[in-house]
Amino acid sequence: MSVTYDRVALIGLGLIAGSMALAMRRAGLAGEIVGTARSAETRTIAAEIGLCDRVVDTVAEAVANADLVVLCVPVGAMGAVAAEMAPHLAPGATVTDVGSVKAGVIAAVAPHLPDTVHFIPAHPLAGTEHSGPRSGFAELFDNRWCLLVPVEGTDDAALGRLRALWQGMGANVDVMDAEHHDLVLAVTSHAPHLIAYTMVGVADDLGRVTDSEVIKYSAAGFRDFTRIAASDPTMWRDVFLNNRDATLEILGRFTEELFALQRAIRKGDGDHLFDYFTRTRAIRRGIIEAGQDTSAADFGRGGKP
Amino acid sequence: MSVTYDRVALIGLGLIAGSMALAMRRAGLAGEIVGTARSAETRTIAAEIGLCDRVVDTVAEAVANADLVVLCVPVGAMGAVAAEMAPHLAPGATVTDVGSVKAGVIAAVAPHLPDTVHFIPAHPLAGTEHSGPRSGFAELFDNRWCLLVPVEGTDDAALGRLRALWQGMGANVDVMDAEHHDLVLAVTSHAPHLIAYTMVGVADDLGRVTDSEVIKYSAAGFRDFTRIAASDPTMWRDVFLNNRDATLEILGRFTEELFALQRAIRKGDGDHLFDYFTRTRAIRRGIIEAGQDTSAADFGRGGKP
Repeated sequence: MSVTYDRVALIGLGLIAGSMALAMRRAGLAGEIVGTARSAETRTIAAEIGLCDRVVDTVAEAVANADLVVLCVPVGAMGAVAAEMAPHLAPGATVTDVGSVKAGVIAAVAPHLPDTVHFIPAHPLAGTEHSGPRSGFAELFDNRWCLLVPVEGTDDAALGRLRALWQGMGANVDVMDAEHHDLVLAVTSHAPHLIAYTMVGVADDLGRVTDSEVIKYSAAGFRDFTRIAASDPTMWRDVFLNNRDATLEILGRFTEELFALQRAIRKGDGDHLFDYFTRTRAIRRGIIEAGQDTSAADFGRGGKP
Repeated sequence: MSVTYDRVALIGLGLIAGSMALAMRRAGLAGEIVGTARSAETRTIAAEIGLCDRVVDTVAEAVANADLVVLCVPVGAMGAVAAEMAPHLAPGATVTDVGSVKAGVIAAVAPHLPDTVHFIPAHPLAGTEHSGPRSGFAELFDNRWCLLVPVEGTDDAALGRLRALWQGMGANVDVMDAEHHDLVLAVTSHAPHLIAYTMVGVADDLGRVTDSEVIKYSAAGFRDFTRIAASDPTMWRDVFLNNRDATLEILGRFTEELFALQRAIRKGDGDHLFDYFTRTRAIRRGIIEAGQDTSAADFGRGGKP
């Protein structure tokens, strides 16, 4: 691999930024990696563990002379960060982000950026339930998708360069428009997260009644939900507030289907349940065939297939 | 370990029975393991792979002279199997099961059994989304819970012997009553499964519209749901039909909470969302501390922690 950007500025030093730093190093994609974070504690940890080549105190310092700036802060904070860094951006630089929502980020960030930079929103479909500067790892993006969501008039060369960076970090890259991205992600990620959060909240209420048995006996099913529901609260608050319409649309469909299944249970309609469960089993096969999961039956606990 | 039962009859040869056979062999817990299944294909496969010491064609042959009989068929089939085997049970034998619902199984099975046998319902809290005679593995029960749900007047010695078998197969054993079991499982397993099935069904509907992008880009969240929703349709149909009241009760609470979160999204109430997500994150820590999962952030795909 060869150096794709001479100086990369990471704004925010959590799971995604940390993993990017490690993945860029693994492949030698960046001449220098400069990082900053709002929290002094985060900056101290990042410096201690050598996450970046340099950790600096301000956004202005971080973006100075960078040819790539990556916004790795929660979606709700991106507008303010964009405004803060705008006067300090190098002409010709590319500004990108890693937010889970795209239309909202474009609306918040684009108005602040000078015409002299390329703005190419992006979203790596990768993550874990952990957060913070110690949570990153170089393999996070391997064989995951990264969706690039260029705005109108995006420079092809700048787009190709960012694509090369993500491919160099191990990801597969696709391009789509912001509205479509936000709908697809509402289905595959945002609604499932809200549902998992909800179910864990319900169990928690009952757990207080049943003396922690809910935790003690957490079987598959629920255990997987708690993993999802352990994700960063700030990030997810911002996702739901910024992808409101698509998320509510999917949740509306979800509730409709759930009511139909509840009615089938109440009425003892076993055929309805059986047919539904047979259909959903098939979509799982599709995901395994698409290479986005394995058929290993370990439920995340490293068991034997 | 020492032989706990001289002859164990496994009725039904799917994931749980197969794993029991392998786990009993691993620890030398059974003198002989005899198995049967309704499907000739299943019996043929089980015989081919040597899952049991003997595979027989009928329930009557399987239970003859067995001192332990384990019902490993779907919950909805247990009553009929109990009626079929009752005349052939050896006096003093223990009859148990592995169903995910307990009150319904007791109501269906107990009336058929002669007074000369011990009936001790059980439920190992372990499984994967795979099914069939090839899906078992000896480690399935290691450090998982097995709940024994004795009916009134159960013989202590018979209970102790069944407990020793499950401990020998690697499980931790607790005893609880059937109604309580069914409520706890509705929270930790049954409702989460129905919710996962529902979400995958919704995504499937949308997937047809979005040209399989839902599958292609299945991010964490949804990918974990599809794993849950790939479980055996017959088994789960029977679970919902036989644990109807507790499942509907939990789903009612779930819907109530979901509506509250949807309203918070619609109104832009970020504090409500943040507080809720912070609370659910804590329950995850409880599960890890209880030893029922690891903090490895692999989402079931074997990634680095």
